[in-house]
Parts: sequence; structure tokens; C-alpha cells
Amino acid sequence: MWDQFEAIAKDIQRDDFVKVQARVELYRNKPQLALIQVRLAKPEEIDLADYLPHTTADVEKMFAELRAYAESISNLWLKQLVLSLIGDPEIGRCYKRAPAAKVMHHAYIGGLLEHVISICGMARRVAGHYPELDVDLLLTAAILHDIGKLEELCYERAIGYTTPGQLLGHIVMELETVTRAIDKIPGFPAPLKTVVQHLLISHHGQYEFGSPKLPMIREAMVFHYLDDLDSKLAAVRVALDAPSGDDEWSAYSAALGRKFLKLDEFLKPATPGAPTESHQAVEPQPQAETPAAAAAAAADPAAPAANPTPEAPSLLRKLFS
Amino acid sequence: MWDQFEAIAKDIQRDDFVKVQARVELYRNKPQLALIQVRLAKPEEIDLADYLPHTTADVEKMFAELRAYAESISNLWLKQLVLSLIGDPEIGRCYKRAPAAKVMHHAYIGGLLEHVISICGMARRVAGHYPELDVDLLLTAAILHDIGKLEELCYERAIGYTTPGQLLGHIVMELETVTRAIDKIPGFPAPLKTVVQHLLISHHGQYEFGSPKLPMIREAMVFHYLDDLDSKLAAVRVALDAPSGDDEWSAYSAALGRKFLKLDEFLKPATPGAPTESHQAVEPQPQAETPAAAAAAAADPAAPAANPTPEAPSLLRKLFS
Amino acid sequence: MWDQFEAIAKDIQRDDFVKVQARVELYRNKPQLALIQVRLAKPEEIDLADYLPHTTADVEKMFAELRAYAESISNLWLKQLVLSLIGDPEIGRCYKRAPAAKVMHHAYIGGLLEHVISICGMARRVAGHYPELDVDLLLTAAILHDIGKLEELCYERAIGYTTPGQLLGHIVMELETVTRAIDKIPGFPAPLKTVVQHLLISHHGQYEFGSPKLPMIREAMVFHYLDDLDSKLAAVRVALDAPSGDDEWSAYSAALGRKFLKLDEFLKPATPGAPTESHQAVEPQPQAETPAAAAAAAADPAAPAANPTPEAPSLLRKLFS
Amino acid sequence: MWDQFEAIAKDIQRDDFVKVQARVELYRNKPQLALIQVRLAKPEEIDLADYLPHTTADVEKMFAELRAYAESISNLWLKQLVLSLIGDPEIGRCYKRAPAAKVMHHAYIGGLLEHVISICGMARRVAGHYPELDVDLLLTAAILHDIGKLEELCYERAIGYTTPGQLLGHIVMELETVTRAIDKIPGFPAPLKTVVQHLLISHHGQYEFGSPKLPMIREAMVFHYLDDLDSKLAAVRVALDAPSGDDEWSAYSAALGRKFLKLDEFLKPATPGAPTESHQAVEPQPQAETPAAAAAAAADPAAPAANPTPEAPSLLRKLFS
Amino acid sequence: MWDQFEAIAKDIQRDDFVKVQARVELYRNKPQLALIQVRLAKPEEIDLADYLPHTTADVEKMFAELRAYAESISNLWLKQLVLSLIGDPEIGRCYKRAPAAKVMHHAYIGGLLEHVISICGMARRVAGHYPELDVDLLLTAAILHDIGKLEELCYERAIGYTTPGQLLGHIVMELETVTRAIDKIPGFPAPLKTVVQHLLISHHGQYEFGSPKLPMIREAMVFHYLDDLDSKLAAVRVALDAPSGDDEWSAYSAALGRKFLKLDEFLKPATPGAPTESHQAVEPQPQAETPAAAAAAAADPAAPAANPTPEAPSLLRKLFS
Amino acid sequence: MWDQFEAIAKDIQRDDFVKVQARVELYRNKPQLALIQVRLAKPEEIDLADYLPHTTADVEKMFAELRAYAESISNLWLKQLVLSLIGDPEIGRCYKRAPAAKVMHHAYIGGLLEHVISICGMARRVAGHYPELDVDLLLTAAILHDIGKLEELCYERAIGYTTPGQLLGHIVMELETVTRAIDKIPGFPAPLKTVVQHLLISHHGQYEFGSPKLPMIREAMVFHYLDDLDSKLAAVRVALDAPSGDDEWSAYSAALGRKFLKLDEFLKPATPGAPTESHQAVEPQPQAETPAAAAAAAADPAAPAANPTPEAPSLLRKLFS
Repeated sequence: MWDQFEAIAKDIQRDDFVKVQARVELYRNKPQLALIQVRLAKPEEIDLADYLPHTTADVEKMFAELRAYAESISNLWLKQLVLSLIGDPEIGRCYKRAPAAKVMHHAYIGGLLEHVISICGMARRVAGHYPELDVDLLLTAAILHDIGKLEELCYERAIGYTTPGQLLGHIVMELETVTRAIDKIPGFPAPLKTVVQHLLISHHGQYEFGSPKLPMIREAMVFHYLDDLDSKLAAVRVALDAPSGDDEWSAYSAALGRKFLKLDEFLKPATPGAPTESHQAVEPQPQAETPAAAAAAAADPAAPAANPTPEAPSLLRKLFS
Repeated sequence: MWDQFEAIAKDIQRDDFVKVQARVELYRNKPQLALIQVRLAKPEEIDLADYLPHTTADVEKMFAELRAYAESISNLWLKQLVLSLIGDPEIGRCYKRAPAAKVMHHAYIGGLLEHVISICGMARRVAGHYPELDVDLLLTAAILHDIGKLEELCYERAIGYTTPGQLLGHIVMELETVTRAIDKIPGFPAPLKTVVQHLLISHHGQYEFGSPKLPMIREAMVFHYLDDLDSKLAAVRVALDAPSGDDEWSAYSAALGRKFLKLDEFLKPATPGAPTESHQAVEPQPQAETPAAAAAAAADPAAPAANPTPEAPSLLRKLFS
Repeated sequence: MWDQFEAIAKDIQRDDFVKVQARVELYRNKPQLALIQVRLAKPEEIDLADYLPHTTADVEKMFAELRAYAESISNLWLKQLVLSLIGDPEIGRCYKRAPAAKVMHHAYIGGLLEHVISICGMARRVAGHYPELDVDLLLTAAILHDIGKLEELCYERAIGYTTPGQLLGHIVMELETVTRAIDKIPGFPAPLKTVVQHLLISHHGQYEFGSPKLPMIREAMVFHYLDDLDSKLAAVRVALDAPSGDDEWSAYSAALGRKFLKLDEFLKPATPGAPTESHQAVEPQPQAETPAAAAAAAADPAAPAANPTPEAPSLLRKLFS
Repeated sequence: MWDQFEAIAKDIQRDDFVKVQARVELYRNKPQLALIQVRLAKPEEIDLADYLPHTTADVEKMFAELRAYAESISNLWLKQLVLSLIGDPEIGRCYKRAPAAKVMHHAYIGGLLEHVISICGMARRVAGHYPELDVDLLLTAAILHDIGKLEELCYERAIGYTTPGQLLGHIVMELETVTRAIDKIPGFPAPLKTVVQHLLISHHGQYEFGSPKLPMIREAMVFHYLDDLDSKLAAVRVALDAPSGDDEWSAYSAALGRKFLKLDEFLKPATPGAPTESHQAVEPQPQAETPAAAAAAAADPAAPAANPTPEAPSLLRKLFS
Repeated sequence: MWDQFEAIAKDIQRDDFVKVQARVELYRNKPQLALIQVRLAKPEEIDLADYLPHTTADVEKMFAELRAYAESISNLWLKQLVLSLIGDPEIGRCYKRAPAAKVMHHAYIGGLLEHVISICGMARRVAGHYPELDVDLLLTAAILHDIGKLEELCYERAIGYTTPGQLLGHIVMELETVTRAIDKIPGFPAPLKTVVQHLLISHHGQYEFGSPKLPMIREAMVFHYLDDLDSKLAAVRVALDAPSGDDEWSAYSAALGRKFLKLDEFLKPATPGAPTESHQAVEPQPQAETPAAAAAAAADPAAPAANPTPEAPSLLRKLFS
Repeated sequence: MWDQFEAIAKDIQRDDFVKVQARVELYRNKPQLALIQVRLAKPEEIDLADYLPHTTADVEKMFAELRAYAESISNLWLKQLVLSLIGDPEIGRCYKRAPAAKVMHHAYIGGLLEHVISICGMARRVAGHYPELDVDLLLTAAILHDIGKLEELCYERAIGYTTPGQLLGHIVMELETVTRAIDKIPGFPAPLKTVVQHLLISHHGQYEFGSPKLPMIREAMVFHYLDDLDSKLAAVRVALDAPSGDDEWSAYSAALGRKFLKLDEFLKPATPGAPTESHQAVEPQPQAETPAAAAAAAADPAAPAANPTPEAPSLLRKLFS
């Protein structure tokens, strides 16, 4: 076998798929494979979904949601810009597929779309809360801010960086893409073009993260927060989902520079065999039903608080109430 | 006058109020006051509201809102804790009065309450968006995270720092206050106490801002974002409201290390004499009414987008559509 | 054996002690163990001192020394505070056992006590030197500054961090312990309480080391130096004691970010077989005119230098005199 | 007068002394000087001590103390080196005069000597405490570490930097001076020379403070602490002595980046009219005389501590006992 | 006058030119202007060159030199790109006028051209020295790297930043300009376009100076050095040319964070009255003519070195030889 | 064999050469050596050049070039200084052998000489470009700036740091060497000595790289650039020459913190089988011969540029023209 192997190996390139026939053997009590036959897989034998991590969400449904957000933009120039981009068939095909990063967060096929949809949702919520914010700018930034990742990353057979992606980065790449799209819209106001460009280049929030300008528009600053928070929460999810070999702490997250507490494990009653009774013993005894009574009671630290309403979804309530 | 002044000045202390009689004179074309009489003001002559900047919102209404957020906490332990604190008459009195900072943001009487109410609202929105988040923890953090500022700052006659406030800071001060309140609640679960304490001490997010621990609980990390965003947006508001002597740029914000763009000034049509017509000329011509048509149109850059609906509130739409 | 092993392994938890029967075999010229039997050790078979590094000093004697330092505090409030804490049986039991850190310095059973005793001694010396310093504050800080480590670290079967220790840190933990002890002393002056709290929270000296406030009291600043110096000298000791595979340089100390010179090796005469004579040859002769006249001249420009007294303990003198 | 002034001013150079005759006038209620006559002062009219701040200590006595420290060095090579340097008449003359810095600390004539004597005293104390330390190296470092300041600074008519001092700094300057002195001592061991040089160049402790090497010898690291502590304590003294216009806080120290608490003001009883009685009211009541009794009492937080002995010098005791 | 002034002032905008008639008066021995008449200047009364600092070089000659550098590029794609840009009439007009910065370096009309020409010259020299470097890339980078400053800065009536310039910066602005020019050249190779874009965006060398990517191409790294060195040398020139009130030190350069030595002042012989003779006295006496003799002589420190050749231009030689 | 091995191993020290007799065997399809005999190599069996990487340039020729640069210095003092140092036989012997670093750049026998010669060449070029620069100072700095590396590094049998080298560093070491050489030249002007010393100590350009002073002389600042650029270009060479397992990217350079693009691979036409034709297709078609025509053509993006001259050496031209 090993002599033939050399000959076969010559024809195998990075990211090729191979078909292997082997025999399982035991060596020092660990199983190992003894190769019998190796050959390049034929295209019809390959289903990429078997090899690349993939969003569990429905990609087409997410893309429809993205388009709905784009159509909700009330400023006609921004709406036309955003729709012209996501309506481009090639951009659309890639948008449905691209991950949001190589390792940090949403590092799987469809991850970018998941990330953007989530930010769009938050953009509406934050603009609903702070009336001084323009939701159109936030949505435009959300939909376009990572569009350069369609080119910065490669995600056909493995997730990595393209060479132009390493040399330019997605901020510069999307700046070109979006600028060209703007220039195709006759009459697009010059100041608005500058604003859109500023939203893109400042969205990393700090020079050391590759933004050549700090956010100097209110919405640019807020958008940086939304993007950063969504990415970091995704990274926390990755850390907490990875096996850590520790009951109370997640695996170390290199992206965040720390471990995270497994809150439910830490808060759960110590004696799992009889949680209800033992826990009840230390629970504040309900004595008043109405919020007002509870508020009154709260002023007197000896008085217990009201019963939780049964539909309350809090994890903490489930554990301690 | 100047001889007597020495005698009078001896009795005047920092933060005293004085009554002054003077005559306006012109000196080198600038007006100046020539003192005639100076004396300490009598208490009945003083209305503090005349001297300290004050929230324009209704404090009692905001405090009722705060209490409503507290009562919406479903975990009984946390609810009891929070209500016992804001139900304390002395804490309540101060909470209605304290600013959120000396200069950075919400630096006026009632500013802390305004800041906290705003974060509570955002806490609900963000927990509605990310289902993994526990809204009870976020609300608890929001209501208690700056309670140490009631003691860190003084705000009777001027806004400043107390000496204990400078030596300990509000994080350490509220840690003591909240810990004592927890210890008065019989049976409060020890791990939940640790979680609350962690929320408080980590809320500045980074060591260099005085947090002795980085957020290591998901809600602690998110809460830091909510607090930081609300403070920074308030600082942007301050910068944009201050006179800057510049049409397009705000005053420099020391808190944020930059100026901010006056977006509406920058985007407004160049020729103010005839905005509608000249602007119409470069506006995309409406041809389709429905969103679907607009979306279709957007794919063709030559096709203009739909008319904005008249009730759309976007600043941008108002300016450019 | 290997089949049974799986069954046995299921019952073994982290930090359990196991009894192993094995046979030494040679594999590729390196010895290895072939397991015959594995079982959980019985409590009576375990002597923890066999598994955890331990101070070589007498713990009881050190604790008596600690108490003597506490009793030497002349301010009655501080003395009562410190004695009430170290007099607590549970605190006393832990204080005799706790290490000062997991890896950095004094990372062994009894290490904390060793570290604190040493700082107390230095506190007296530095206060003897700088008359403006209050020794009571320095001793109070010395005895209490790491009392939170009793809870931050676990040190029953292995040295590590407890989960609350990771979430809060020893500064926050001891702040609670010490504050509660102060509050139990009727009439403890409020400003003195603030001073003690400031000493605790500022003792790491800088924000990035987890102090939420910089030292703003003279003794707080000095105490930070004493604590830091004692810790760093202990870390140098660890580096110099570890095998480094190098004649002149210690192992690399991650705590200090460098190697340390083995001074005695570097300074020792090159020909160890005949150090005295060969060295004498290059020693300044305190009786001759030319080189020694220079040496002699140095003491009074005219008078020659004295012979070293035979009992002088300096390493350098031993090597070169 | 003003016409003549131009003529006179031409002859006045920086750091010249001038004799001024003037008349005090009132301008807008502030006094001002109206010049009548200006001329260069004659040498016999100038006493420099009137113009430069000066140590209050006896310089000759301090220099004798310095020599005594030098003579106490037991290693003959180091002793000869140190004595040859401070025995040099020109070095001696400057050493008695030089300040330790331009503004940071000991910024007055004789300040360097004061600083060095203080470190020598601490060197003995710290070497007495940590037996692994070589006191000879610490004393050598103490006496020589700032000898380059004799040339780096100018202090004849005003305290400032010389041009070579700015280009080279005192570390490089003293390296040359000390190296030349070593090379004049026949047979001075080469490794010991390297050690002395390392002590000099590493004494600022960090690259950013101008040390081209970090301390890699135990005594070098300790010496950096002693030097740093002595300088910082002197800077605290400067801050606390300066008028700050605040009862409880010192002036801001640019050297230390903060204010310092006026501890005695902060701790003094609130009602100065009747301090003794009102304070007694909250003092722990003495019930036991012996330390043992006090220690026993301390375990019971309700029991008060022993009376302070009357001669105890602590500031705190004076205030609160 | 002052009443009228208000009326006139209303019509004066920032950067307007005004015509003033005034009378010089003396006030407290300082001259001041007493206004008589103020009005807006008429266009024909304004010569901008009177108000803005201007290069002393011949702008047209420099621009011809720039074009010659462009035409020397041997790669046809790059040559066509560069010529198409500087051949554009509007770009050419601005290029001849733009400063290179607002304050840092070359902050005068024509400064950018001066800066670019200088770098082109250095690019040729460095490429002549290091054969691995491609001079075409260096020249392309030199000519295009600051072309965004034509839009980032305004320099009609005063030197400042445009609002789009502040929001985007010249790197992003020139990226758009150059990319559009590339896209107009049919067949321009895609990888070469990426390389040109990388040269532009990485030329500040570090993230904190606004480069979104570090140089990852050899020529990009070298170009950053050339640009940085030319800018810094210009800043040194500014510092040394400004009056500093000090014989040996320049004014403080905020751009460089230090002062610079006036080398010639520092090195010039101390007794200016008789420099030649007094200096000769300490000069090495020439004894040998050939370099070899000088080399031989140098090995013997007693032997003097060769005469300098009379045409040698060195400042040092003039001073000391 | 293995029993004897222990006995033999005892006599083998670090950096010894051994003679090994062994037999090649296959183990798990990888070849391995089975030792038969090991003994210390005899001196006559060792040719060091077989074991240490070595410059490919001719060392004697380079040294002659160095001397020629030294002799070209026109200032007699500097010339005498430099020649006295490189004329010293021991310095000369080491200078021909020393590497410029242990790992960063020029880490091979003769590397220092290569590095210095290269900087001398650049010094002439940069002084030719910027007339304000003194080439004598640049050449002096170039030849002397790393002379301390002769002692800082050891390079007899392996490249590493000497113990004094680690304690002092080459800047301090060469400061002593050069200062001693200056002091041997009677009448060497004191200010010029200070200037030379400043050039040496400031040549790392920043405190954190071990320069105790920032460059404050124009030539010192420029020299730092020349040294830094030459070192970094050498490090790029190392990265690009190392096998990286990647077609377009070099190995990661720890010295530079990044990978570098393999420019020629990235730019080469995609279809290597028929580069000329396929490439011609997208090449701009030559239509004009003279530069003027090309310039004219360039203004019209449709017009192709001039033919490259056949001897143009640019890599880019070769690839794309």
C-alpha cells in the first residue's frame, strides 16, 4: 500500500475530497486505520453539508426576512441601494452561504445571514427605544456592514480567508462594492453617500480592530455596539456549548479572553435528589398576592415577597421560586 | 465697597449662596458688574432648582416606573431584594435626586433615575430579542448598578464627589449596601448572592474603568453594553446640544474623545432657498407603489423606488424623499 | 486489565486519591508502568501532606507571631477589628492552611501565613524608617489584605480557585468579611472604616491588577509596595530554586516575565579548584602603593581601607575578599 | 522708564540676577509694581540660598553619613569603588549640592543627598529582613544610582537639565563615570563590574522609564523598589504640603497622577468644639489590661479592647483612643 | 465705531477677507489697533498668496517632475493608471495646490507635491539599493498615496479638513478615486488592482494611524518607511525653524513629542571670537595624506589622522577639522 | 549500546560535537537511526562552517568595504574614532564573524557585517537625497551601532547570548567600548563625544526596544529608520525563503507579527500553460512610442500606453507587459 500511496498522494490537493478504504486495527489499545485504498472522490459522491458546519436555521426563510427588513427602510435612496445589492443574484447566492467569521462567531455556513438578521431585529428595538436614532441608517448598516465578507472569506470546501481578503479586509471590500452600487443610482445625494461610507468604515469601532475612522455619527456609534454585542453573545454561545470538562465553567474563549459561568449549573440546588423540598425551606414564603403588597412587604425585609406568576419564563425563577 | 468686601468674604464658605447688589458698567466695550452690596442669602431666598441643572422629566413618575420594573421581576429573591432597597425611604429620596455623574452624562438632578429607567427599558428589549438572556438579572443589575452613586456623589448644593466616594467609588459602596440588604433576607441562596455581587462589580466591563472583575456571566456582559451605550448616547446628546460654533460638527466631547456630526445639517439640501424643487430633481422617481414593486425595481438600478408613505418618521426620508 | 479499567474509572472523580498496583516494564528503553490493579484509596490511607506542597515553617508558631503583631496595634479600634477576625476559629483554621496564590508565589499550604508574617515585619521596618507612616494602618492592611483568599482559593486536595472566588476575587470577598466584622464593633468610627476599606481595595496598586481604586492614602501606597515586593521576591525564589538546565540563569519566571541571574555562580572564581589563591592574585592589596594606594586612598583619600571583619556575612565578600 | 528698559534688557541673560527699584501702585484694586530702576546685581549682592529651595537638613552631616554607609560595605572591591567616587573632591562638592530631580521629588539643593541617605537606611532594613539579599550591592546601588544627576542637572542658579543631560540622561552618564572608576581599580573582577553596571542601568525598573534592561538580579529588582518608594513618598510629601484649597484632599500630584487624602483631617472627630467627650462616647470601653485579655476579648466582638499605653505614637491612636 | 461694528460683523463669515482702517495706539506700553472702518474686501483686492503659507519651490516644475516619475514606470498598467490620474485636469489643479497636512508637516500650499516628489526620489534610491524591491510599485504608491488629501483637506482660503474628509479620511477617499480609475482601464489585472489597493490602505503602517491593514507586501512595508521618514524630517525642519527661545534646543514638536538639538550650535567651538586657532589646538594633527595612512594611524591613538579634502561638505568637518 | 550510552553521555557537554555511527532502520514506515557508536569528535574532525549558517558573501571583501566607508568619513575626529575601532585586531576578527541577531534577522555568521555594509550604502543614498543630513554622523552610527553585539552574542559553536550580554545589552556594551576609544583620542571635542554617545543609545528609536533616550538629533532619528528598515527587510527575506506550505503566503514571521505575500506567485497569470497569448489579450495595446504620447493617451482611458523598453527589469513588467 505505502508505495502506491506516494503515487496517489501526488494528485491530491488541499481541500480535495478523497475516498478511503481501510481496516480498523488495534495498536497499544487505541484503534487505528490501516489504509487499503485511497482515491479522489467523484463530484457525485460529495455532499458538502457533510463536511462544513451549517446553520440550523432555514436559509431561504432568513433571506426573505432580510429582504423584508430592506423593504421596511423608508428613505428611498437607502432602500434602493440595499435592495439593489441583496437583489443581485451572485450576492444573494453568497449571502445565503457565507459564514460571519472563520473562528470567532457564527463560523458556519449561513452564519452571516443569521448574524445580520439578528442585528436588524436589535436595530428596530434600539431605535424604538431611543427616538433620536434613525432606524433606516441602522438597518442599512446592518445589511451592508459585512457584505465584504462574501469575498473576504472562502467557504466552498472549507472556511478560510481568500488572498485578496487578507490583503484588503471586508471593510475595504464592501466599501468598493457599496460605492459602485451607489454610483449606479442616478442622483444619490453626495452627503448621504458619505454617511453610508462612514457607517461601513467605522463599524469596528476602534482603530486597532481595523476601522480607519472612529464612529462620528450617532447611528454609527450605536451600530458598532449592536454588531459587537451580537458577535460577542455568539462567542459566549460557542464557549458554553463546547465541552469544557468542568461543571461550572465553560471552555476558555480565545475570542473573549475568559471563561463563562454555566449559570444554571451554578445556581441549581445542591442536593439534586430532593430539590423541591430542600429548596422550599429557604424560599421566601409568599404572603401577599398583589404587586403592591409585595412592594410594601419588600420595605420590611422580614416579609416575604409575592408568588411568581406561573407563566414567568425566567431561569432563575424556575430554579429558586 | 472693596474694604467691606474683605470683611464679608470671610463669612462665605464654599457652596454658600450670596445675594449681590451691583451696577452694570461698560469697560472696554464689555459689560461688567460693579458690586454695591454682598450678603449671605437667607434660606427662604434660595430655590436650589435655580442653581443646579435638573432633569426635565417628572421625577415622581419616573420613580413609579422604576418600581414597576422592580415589581416585574419574576424571581422572588431578586424582586424582594430590589424592592427592599428602593423601598427604603432614604434611598428613595436620594434616588429621585442623584445625578448619574459629575460631568460625563446625565450630570443633573434626577439624571440617575433617567439613566436607570432607560436601561430597564432596553433590558426588556434585549431580553426579548435574545431568548438566552434572563431579564430578571438584567433588571436587577439596572436598578442596583449605580445605587452607590447616591453616596459617591454629593448633590445638595453642587454636584461633586464625597470624600468616601473618592476613596471607595460607587461600585464598592453599592456592594456594601446591596450585600447588607441581601443578608437581611433569610434564606437568600448563596450562589444567587454571588451572581448579584458579580453583576455589580463587573458592570464597568474593564479593569481600567474600575471593575475588579471582567464580566464572566452572560447577563453581566450584556448589562455592561446596555449601561455603556446609554451613557455614551447621553454624552453624544450633551455634545450635540452644546454650542460648537460650527455648522456641521458638535462641540468636542472629552468623554468620547471626538466630535460628532450634526447629521441633519450635513444632509440638508445645499440650496435652502428652493429645497423642494432642486432636490426633487435628483430624487429617484417613484413608479411603483408596493414594496414588492420597489424590491423588483431595486434590482434594476435605473428604475426608481416607490414613494415614501407619508407617515414615515425617518429624518432621512424627510430630507431626501 | 484494560476492560476492567473502564469500569473502575467511572467511579473516580477529580481530586480523588487512588491506589495503584503496577509492574515496571521497559518500552523502547524507557520505563513504563503496566497497571495491575486500581481502586479508590480509603481515607485512612491518605496523608494529604504527601500530595500538596507545604511550608517548611512551623504553622502554629507563625500564627502566634501573627497574633503578636495584631496585639501590637496601638489604635484600639483597629486592634479589636484585627483580633476579632483572626480570633474567629474558622478563619484561624483556614489562615493556617491557605496558600497565597495558585502559582505565582507562596503557592503551598501555609504560604499565605508566611507571606503575611513577612510583610508585618517589613511594615515595622518601613514605619521605623519613615516617621510619617502609621504602623497601625500598615499592620492592619498586612493582616487583612489577603483574608479573602481563604475563600477565593480551595486547598483541601489541590490548590485552585473556587467558583465564587473566580467571580468575585479576594479583594471583594475580604471587603465583605472585614466590613461585617467592623459593623459588629459598636461605635467604630465611620471615617476609619472607610480608610480600612480603601486599604483593602487599593492594595493591588493598579486598575489592571484588579484594584477598583488607586491608593490615595500614603499608607495604602506604601502597603502596595510591601505586598508587591514580598510577592515578587518569593517568585524570584521559585525561579531560582527550579531546575533550569543552565549554570548562570534561573528558569523563566512567567510571573515576572524574565529569568534571574544565579549571582553566586556568575561571580564565583573561574578556577574552582584553587579559588583562594587565584582570587587573591587579583584582589586589591591593602598594603601596597600603586593599586592599593588607590584602594587605601578611597576610604579617606589618605587612609587605607580596613580588612573585612571575619564574620561579615556578605556573599560577595566571601567570594571576592 | 520704559525707553531705558529696552536698553537695559539687552544686557540681561537667562539666570542673571537683577536689582530692581520700584513703587507699589494699585491698579484695578490689585497691587502692581511700577519700575523705577533696573540693573544687574553685583556678585557680592547675591546669596543663592535666597533664590533656590534648599534642604533643611545639615548637608555636611548627611555627607558624613553617606561616607559611613560607604565604609560599612564589606566587599573590598565595592567599598573601594564607592569610596573612590564620593572621595573625589569635585564629585563630593556636587553631591552636597545636587537636587534629585527638577520637579518630581527632592527638587531642591541637597535633595539628592537626602534621597540617597534615606535609601541607604532602607537598604539596611530590607537586607535585615530578607536574608537572601546582599546589603553590599544594595548600598553600592544606593550611593551610585543617581551620581549621573550631578551632570544631568544644572543647579547653580536654577534647577534644570544640561544639554548633555537631555541627550544622554543620568543612567548613561553615571555608567561612564562608574565604569571609569572601576577601570582604575586594578584587578576589579569582570563579573562584579558587570553586576554593578546592571544595577545602574536597570534601576528605573522598566523600559518606558529609560532603563535599557529590566532588573535580572535579585538585588537590582529590590533596589528599584527602594528607589521608587522613596521618590514616591517624597512626591506625596510635596503634594500634601502644597496648599490645595481643600480640607480633606491634597493638591493634585502630576508625578503620581492623583490627589492624596489628608488623613488626619479626614479622621479627626466631627465636632471640634468638644472632641474628647463626644469621641469617648463611641470608643470601645476598656475592660482588660493585658494583651492576652485583649486578644481574648477580641474573639468576642461585644467585648472592648485594652487601653492604649500612653506613649504609643500612632496618629490614629491619638485621634481615636 | 463700535455700534457700527455690530452691523458690519453680521455680514462677515468664516474665511472671509476684510479691509480694515485703523489707528495704532499705545495701551499700557503695548501697541493696539483702534478700528476706524471695516468692510468686506472685494475679490480684486485679494491675493490669496498673501494669506496662506506657500512652498518656495516652483510648482509647475515640481509637477513636471512628478509626471516624469510617472512616465518612468515600466509596468504599462501602473503607468497608465498613474498618468490617467495626474493627467486629469481637476486632479492636476488640486495636486499643485494641496498641502500635505493641516499642521504636522508640509502644511502649506504646494506642500503635498513637495512631499511626493521627495518620496519618489527616495523610492528610486532605495530600489537601487535593495534589488528585491520593485520600483514601479514604490513610485505608484508615492504618487497616489495621498491623492485623497486633495479632497480631505480644504485649502482655498485656509487650510483645514472638509467634513467628508473628517468622516472618511484620505485613505478611504483615494481608494475610491484610484479604484474608479482602475476600473476604467480595460483588462487591468485583478491581482494587480488588489496590490495597488493594499499599497494605499496600508501606507500608514499601523492600525492606530488609520491603516485598516498592516503592510503585507514587501514594497508596502518599505513605502510606509519612506513616507514616514519624509514626513518626520519635515516636522523636524518645522521645529528647528521655529523660534524656540533656546540656543541649543528647537521648539517642542507636538508631532514628534520632543525637542530637537540644534546640532551646529551645540558643536560650535566655545570661544566664537577666535574659533580657528583655539580649535586647532585640540584638533588631531594631520600627518599622512592617503586613506591607508590614516587607517594605520588610527590604530595608534597617538597618531593624528589625514587632512580633510577641501571640498568635503560635512558640517562637522567645517566645525572641527 | 544503551548501557554504554549512559557512560558516554556523561562526558558530553552543551555545544560539544560528537561522532555517531548508526544504522538506518524503518519504524512504522518512518526511517530512524539505531545508534551503534558515539564519541566526542576530535578538533581536526570539526569544520564549524558545517554546523552554523553562514553569509554567502565574501567576508574579507565586505570588511574591506566597511573600511572604505570608514575612510570616506570627512570629519577627522569621527574618522579616527571609527578606524581605531575597526582597526583593532580583536574587534576586526569578531566583526567578520558576528551575526546581527540570534533569530530576528541576519542570524548567521557574517550577518552583522552584511547588515552594516547595507546600512552604510543606504546612509550615503539618504544623505544624497536630504541635503540637511550629515553623512559622517550616519556612517559613524552605522559602523558602531551594533559593535556591542560582538560581546552580547556568542557565535563560536552556536549563536546565543552571553551572560554579560543579557545583563547589559549591546547598546550599553558598545557605549563602553566606543567611549573608551574616544577617550584615547587626545582633544576629541566633548560635544562631539556626546553626539556619538547619543547616536548609539537612541538607535532603537523607542524606550520599549531598549533605547534609554529617544532620538533628539536629526541624524539619530534618520539612522534609526535606516537600521530598522534594513533589519525588517532581512526579516521579510527570511519569512519568504522559509517553506510555508502555501502558494501565496510566506511563513509567519514572529519578528514582524505577520505573513508576507509572495508577490510573484500572486501576480502571475492564471493559466501558466499559455501565459503570453492569454495575457496579451488583456494587456493595453501599445500605440504610441514617446512618453508624451503615453501621457496623452493616459488621459483617455481607452488609449493604451507605450511599449515597455526591453531592458526594463521590473518583475511586474515581466509579468504583465
